[in-house]
Amino acid sequence: MDDKFHHVALIGLGLIGSSLSLAMRRAGIADRITGHARSARTRAKALEMGLVDTVFDNPADAVRGADLIILCVPIGVYGTIAREIAPHLKPGAIVTDVGSVKAAVIRDTAPHIPTGVHFIPAHPIAGSERSGPEAGFTELFDGRWCILTPIPGTDETALGKVRKFWQNCGMSVDIMTPEHHDLVLAITSHLPHLIAYNIVGTAADLETVTESEVIKFSAGGFRDSTRLAASDPTMWRDVFLNNKEAVLEMLARFSEDLTALQRAIRWGEGETLFNLFARTRKIRRNIIDAGQDTEAPDFGRPHADTGKEGPARG
Amino acid sequence: MDDKFHHVALIGLGLIGSSLSLAMRRAGIADRITGHARSARTRAKALEMGLVDTVFDNPADAVRGADLIILCVPIGVYGTIAREIAPHLKPGAIVTDVGSVKAAVIRDTAPHIPTGVHFIPAHPIAGSERSGPEAGFTELFDGRWCILTPIPGTDETALGKVRKFWQNCGMSVDIMTPEHHDLVLAITSHLPHLIAYNIVGTAADLETVTESEVIKFSAGGFRDSTRLAASDPTMWRDVFLNNKEAVLEMLARFSEDLTALQRAIRWGEGETLFNLFARTRKIRRNIIDAGQDTEAPDFGRPHADTGKEGPARG
Repeated sequence: MDDKFHHVALIGLGLIGSSLSLAMRRAGIADRITGHARSARTRAKALEMGLVDTVFDNPADAVRGADLIILCVPIGVYGTIAREIAPHLKPGAIVTDVGSVKAAVIRDTAPHIPTGVHFIPAHPIAGSERSGPEAGFTELFDGRWCILTPIPGTDETALGKVRKFWQNCGMSVDIMTPEHHDLVLAITSHLPHLIAYNIVGTAADLETVTESEVIKFSAGGFRDSTRLAASDPTMWRDVFLNNKEAVLEMLARFSEDLTALQRAIRWGEGETLFNLFARTRKIRRNIIDAGQDTEAPDFGRPHADTGKEGPARG
Repeated sequence: MDDKFHHVALIGLGLIGSSLSLAMRRAGIADRITGHARSARTRAKALEMGLVDTVFDNPADAVRGADLIILCVPIGVYGTIAREIAPHLKPGAIVTDVGSVKAAVIRDTAPHIPTGVHFIPAHPIAGSERSGPEAGFTELFDGRWCILTPIPGTDETALGKVRKFWQNCGMSVDIMTPEHHDLVLAITSHLPHLIAYNIVGTAADLETVTESEVIKFSAGGFRDSTRLAASDPTMWRDVFLNNKEAVLEMLARFSEDLTALQRAIRWGEGETLFNLFARTRKIRRNIIDAGQDTEAPDFGRPHADTGKEGPARG
């Protein structure tokens, strides 16, 4: 099978779109890359950085003649984009995406895709708290998992090409139903983001502890939550609006468990606390063994360079 | 003022005790270091690593003749230890500690400290998810804050010596009341740990998503929570049992805010979500500007070395 695409169109040139361009260039799998971004600044930056050969303010122009089209915009605008690009998609072209929710993406996108064009929904599970074209880097996808959620009747050859594409970008590929994907991601990604956003909001709103104290003494653990809570607000608003049922289900379980923990603290049930705390430790070990996090303590945060990292001693 | 101590006793030789030994050696502020650990393995390891000059299975023997005694054990055993060492403390000696809760530590420890010995409670806000003497490293305290919570009538000279000691270990020093410390730490450290433990427990107990899926797809955010949830179970059980009121107060606020967020998701209130998510992003920026976290995306986790970090591509 030929791994290459003559022409790839990136709809959206933020963290994921720009990293995809860099990963495709490294793999040498795209002869030509066109791009679309709504903001003039992003378009200029992407062109200047060589992320795209040509850039368009209109998504329809970006997809004209493309063999592979990748939607890398917040999922809330997929429906609009799909409607705009539909008439300009080349017969035989493949449309894939990077959205963090799959059932809603299929609901909004699939109806617009013309017969003869293949829509293969995908979710590369990789990212960082940064946004914009400058945030991208070549290795973002390396060693991470990409989940494909094909819809009934998907063309096997097109599916194989998309699978190979994400592998060429550095990822391992798994296949599951959109519904199961949305449940898995609700617990592994959406709920962690929600509670991170929530605790940072709670901490900022206290009257008894000032925001500057929260910041100053954040190394006790709070700072870990702030990374996820620094993620792109538009993207995450759209995730929660579009994976409502699964997120609410996971949230209900989380709250139920937290109430039990609260009760154990109130009644001084040390054994209940200890048993949970001993059990969770093993899960991190398994994540490290599975190659999904670094083994270095403290995520490998730099510690030695005190001049750059720390406040003045005093 | 002479910065040096002739003889320092470390009661407890885990992550903090071992790091303190290394930091003291670097600063050249301890002529002699004795240590106590309950476990024979830890004692042998600490001696082998040169963390202590002499090691004792009995805390009373370790403190005999010491000028500075540092309690580095879980706070649940402070009372017992204080009672055991009290008769053997040298007049004029200083006792300090590293406990994450201060009011309870003072309640359990101060009554045992003899007249003529100075007890200066301290909390160096630094750590990692690792435990044991091998987990320690010289730079652990560099650029971080140490909070002192002196009790009424504290000797100013002794307070000054303890302040200087933590500064020599690489820390900045702040002073506040034990009660305020416990409130500040409840939000900046204790609650973040509690919700991290809780979400990891919730994720492990699902029927619809397997534990192996949770591990495999953890790079979407879940893995961030697992670091705090891998912290020492005994230490954290004792923290929650001993800072009950402040933790329950912060937890109540967190749960209230989370319920509001849940409602916003259920009713599709995108603006409420967006406004919170945009606000929390700034707090991370402030933490980085304050030198309390790394600026590198993804905590600076390694990304380039795919051979070591990732699963096989396929």
